[in-house]
Amino acid sequence: MNEIYSIGIDIGGTNTDVGLVNGNGKVISRANIKTGDYHDAVVYVDQISELIKQLLQNVDSALVSGIGIGAPAANYYSGNIENATNLNFKGVVPIRSLFEERFPYKVVFTNDANAATYGEMIYGGAKGMSHFIMYTLGTGIGSGIVIDGKLVYGADGLAGEMGHAILIPEGRECGCGNKGCVEKYASTSGIVLNCLELMPQFPDSILCSVPFEVMTGKTISDAAKKNDPLAIATYERTGYLLGIALANAVTFSSPEAIFLMGGPIQAGEVFLDPIRRSFKKHKLFIYDREIPILLSSLPTNDSAILGAAALTR
Amino acid sequence: MNEIYSIGIDIGGTNTDVGLVNGNGKVISRANIKTGDYHDAVVYVDQISELIKQLLQNVDSALVSGIGIGAPAANYYSGNIENATNLNFKGVVPIRSLFEERFPYKVVFTNDANAATYGEMIYGGAKGMSHFIMYTLGTGIGSGIVIDGKLVYGADGLAGEMGHAILIPEGRECGCGNKGCVEKYASTSGIVLNCLELMPQFPDSILCSVPFEVMTGKTISDAAKKNDPLAIATYERTGYLLGIALANAVTFSSPEAIFLMGGPIQAGEVFLDPIRRSFKKHKLFIYDREIPILLSSLPTNDSAILGAAALTR
Repeated sequence: MNEIYSIGIDIGGTNTDVGLVNGNGKVISRANIKTGDYHDAVVYVDQISELIKQLLQNVDSALVSGIGIGAPAANYYSGNIENATNLNFKGVVPIRSLFEERFPYKVVFTNDANAATYGEMIYGGAKGMSHFIMYTLGTGIGSGIVIDGKLVYGADGLAGEMGHAILIPEGRECGCGNKGCVEKYASTSGIVLNCLELMPQFPDSILCSVPFEVMTGKTISDAAKKNDPLAIATYERTGYLLGIALANAVTFSSPEAIFLMGGPIQAGEVFLDPIRRSFKKHKLFIYDREIPILLSSLPTNDSAILGAAALTR
Repeated sequence: MNEIYSIGIDIGGTNTDVGLVNGNGKVISRANIKTGDYHDAVVYVDQISELIKQLLQNVDSALVSGIGIGAPAANYYSGNIENATNLNFKGVVPIRSLFEERFPYKVVFTNDANAATYGEMIYGGAKGMSHFIMYTLGTGIGSGIVIDGKLVYGADGLAGEMGHAILIPEGRECGCGNKGCVEKYASTSGIVLNCLELMPQFPDSILCSVPFEVMTGKTISDAAKKNDPLAIATYERTGYLLGIALANAVTFSSPEAIFLMGGPIQAGEVFLDPIRRSFKKHKLFIYDREIPILLSSLPTNDSAILGAAALTR
């Protein structure tokens, strides 16, 4: 069998990464540009197209399955970036058709969390699963849902925004306009807020000397490695809350497993253990099998490119 | 075209209703037995089978699409009733195979909320929709989810239990072992509890003279018709909480519409208006189209039979 190659493009607020992915799910060559350097979407797409041509130089075009693109505020159905808050391109940008005009390949476009979900299904730990959910934890919380082996897009291409499910009615104000979203309790900034909330109970913590404006997820994760009690309590609280959110998601689609990826997960067992305990405690009793909470098995640096490339498979 | 007939069976804790449904979704004849009169599942199925034979007396068996069965604690994949809490049949009862042994027809078996969802899709207001969610409000809260025109069963046949999503972490104790489930705030008993919680604020309400042990959803609904301020506040509070739960469900599957059915909905606008207002307020802004909250369009008395019959279509 001839090897099938895919192009994966990860459009981020800071960088745009482009990679050539082989049939085994390995990124065999890559390139990137600074997204913020571009203010005109056409110039931006032209530049990426140049990179793609270079990556494909020695590849038979008959063996290319397509170009997959993951982006924030991406709409799968329309192929547009729509009102992205962290990109220079304002309004509606027809990313998919700009690439379709430039290449003879299939172009598939979706949001970054959905791409990550696809990557896990095609190349990662969810290979062979028909039902799973992915949460991507970072500055915000994204999610992707697979049912019967298919990504759920919903009526408008915007399904799977469980970071904005309301976990604590009338809780913390979220940028989306609601209060108490999961994202405000379990994203990087949510973890910092949990830490601040618990701080008065741990006056001896090394974190008490860190000003709020410089406190990050990494500060807390580093403190946890030194067994700081406030850092540990912060992950306990965060894991407790996230575990409830995951248990709630199970009442929806009853998945085989839930996957987690992203920065906060790098804290390791100090965070994962309370997530798993809370999930187990709150999982509805009728789901009397194990539903494992798994980490993405894709290499962190390549996962976004792999996810995008997987869309074409 | 020859008319296609289906048999719908609704197994409830009190009654088991059996109906013959025509191609237009009308129940053209029906019969019932008392579920509680039977302690042996085989005798019970034999008795239902007799009723079915009578209903099918004048129908050409070539025109029968099958037998659909809705039941509590039903597992679609296994075809079993599993550990039902409100039936005499304990443990695992192979309902589907008991019917398959007795009839040459396709037999489809699922839980009652899923059957109601199917009924709405085939015969009711969701005809032609690919993405919608149904909530059945009653003693508990059931739900069914349709994505891409298919009912979501999940890995084990038990998807769609959103009545047990946790709405208020550490809230009211639920029979499922968790605390704060949607069901404890928006089912019939949840509404009564909301009323009790608000009672001290409304000492002049006519409901203050009603003992807890006899207070029902109907008591509160009747009081609302007399403009009792506590009853109105109870529906306002319940609608507020249910509206959040519905908005959360949208972040999962981004449906075209959400359907409601069941006793509490009979209260009418005094309940529906606050549900809709809260839903609109809490619906994530990216879903910037109308997602209507609709009532089931199936006749209340026939909806369970129609839902079960629809499973065969």
